[in-house]
Amino acid sequence: MSRPARVTITESSPRDGLQSLGVFIPTDAKIGLIDDLSMAGLVSFDAVSFVSPTAVPQMADAAEVIAGVARIGVFLRGLVPNLRGLEAAVAAGVDGIGVLTAASDTFSERNINADVEESMDRIRAILDEVPAGLSVRAYISTITHCPYEGPTDPARVAVLAERLAEWGCDEIFLGETLGKGTVGDVERVLDHVLARVPVSRLGVHFHDTYGQALANVVLSLDAGIDKLDSSAGGLGGCPYAPGAAGNVATEDVMWLLDGLGIDHDGDIQQVASVAARFCDEHNLPYRSRAGRATLAASEVEA
Amino acid sequence: MSRPARVTITESSPRDGLQSLGVFIPTDAKIGLIDDLSMAGLVSFDAVSFVSPTAVPQMADAAEVIAGVARIGVFLRGLVPNLRGLEAAVAAGVDGIGVLTAASDTFSERNINADVEESMDRIRAILDEVPAGLSVRAYISTITHCPYEGPTDPARVAVLAERLAEWGCDEIFLGETLGKGTVGDVERVLDHVLARVPVSRLGVHFHDTYGQALANVVLSLDAGIDKLDSSAGGLGGCPYAPGAAGNVATEDVMWLLDGLGIDHDGDIQQVASVAARFCDEHNLPYRSRAGRATLAASEVEA
Repeated sequence: MSRPARVTITESSPRDGLQSLGVFIPTDAKIGLIDDLSMAGLVSFDAVSFVSPTAVPQMADAAEVIAGVARIGVFLRGLVPNLRGLEAAVAAGVDGIGVLTAASDTFSERNINADVEESMDRIRAILDEVPAGLSVRAYISTITHCPYEGPTDPARVAVLAERLAEWGCDEIFLGETLGKGTVGDVERVLDHVLARVPVSRLGVHFHDTYGQALANVVLSLDAGIDKLDSSAGGLGGCPYAPGAAGNVATEDVMWLLDGLGIDHDGDIQQVASVAARFCDEHNLPYRSRAGRATLAASEVEA
Repeated sequence: MSRPARVTITESSPRDGLQSLGVFIPTDAKIGLIDDLSMAGLVSFDAVSFVSPTAVPQMADAAEVIAGVARIGVFLRGLVPNLRGLEAAVAAGVDGIGVLTAASDTFSERNINADVEESMDRIRAILDEVPAGLSVRAYISTITHCPYEGPTDPARVAVLAERLAEWGCDEIFLGETLGKGTVGDVERVLDHVLARVPVSRLGVHFHDTYGQALANVVLSLDAGIDKLDSSAGGLGGCPYAPGAAGNVATEDVMWLLDGLGIDHDGDIQQVASVAARFCDEHNLPYRSRAGRATLAASEVEA
């Protein structure tokens, strides 16, 4: 399979990036981040999560964030753990929802208090109630490694992906939650999944905890996948690896795509400016290498 | 071509890493770094440079460093810009030398005060005087991008590599000096070079300035290349991109190789410990993601 001509980047910093921080980012700042990144050309956002505020206090203001964003041409997705979350997401007026399962029972139990089959039941119940026209993306976590169970069986990921596709999920995103997977691990999972699910419905979500994310992005592009999550400035972390990096940085992905002549939304220098300013204002590490180099180069030129 | 079963890592932090810093690292600390990394299992070192101390004051103590290292099973290479450098390297007792050219005249002139053909003449003169048994590695810089001339012609890289191979250089290392090259650029260069030089004599040297280094390492392994440079903790920088990352981090490479089941020298956790301590002692940023995550995981376990 050849590389796609165009890739859809979903900007994950507002949700996956911010929710793994130990601090609460004020509502206005979350809205400002999405608005500024959309001014930088990004269109698709993993914006919020409609989880219980007790479980994830960082996302307690999900509805206010959706209400506050200047919604000119942007696509806002909200993660939905259950029917109550779906109701809140629909009331808030999201463009799409995300639902969550995992390829490891122990991880799923600790993450969302349901084993894999129970999480699939919840997804099934949500799908039965989803209003027409609302896009549904299903995430499968721990596709290569589980922090409790070790290496993941790729066949299990493929079976879950196939069921989610058959149930009508528009997109199935493969989440390498720990960032431990190397290209060999990811290749095995993709081989299994692509035998059961059309590539046009697959996306990938990599964490850069062990520095492997961009190599895994390349592998996924080579497999024909044209949808991926990334986070401006590499915002975020990994609750299972203290001090570790977050999602693969949007700017690093953009540099790759620009170098390969693959079309995408957003401008690398503008995204880097927005993310660097946000990190600076909230005392967070700015982690994009391509972003830092791009900003440094623009200062030299200026 | 399939991935190699074993990869030789040349640890570049002592030379390429430290010489690009704005500070002089004391001789004892340089010796300690090499000794500690060799205790961590690394064997092959890009150790010093026998350049003019006026040009590169960071390397003024090259002979003392070579004399000071506990040389139990380690291979120490010294960069040699000219016949005077060769003389000093031989007197110091290195195991191998490095010689340098580039695929861009402007870069070569600014870096070593000689255009490409003049740099090749210097290499030729050095090769004529190299004592038998001394290993020679030739570096070609700017294989994908030049900071002054823009994109590099891959055919020019291939012609230079072929000449260096014909002249008897044991190894030819392709240096992506700026870290701007994506897998598309590197693939083009490798295609050209592999048509003219046996893969067994090739090595790669990537900088992580734009976050592309590990993906380029994967591509090189896929092409069958089994020799690469890396730098513990990602030590180093890039004089052409202020604030930018250095060589690809040894720990990130090791995590990749371990994941792929590819044999190599050195232990990731020990290398990470040594590099993190060195960075801490010298107030340098510790930049390996896999190293940071490995150290964090070992603290959690401990």
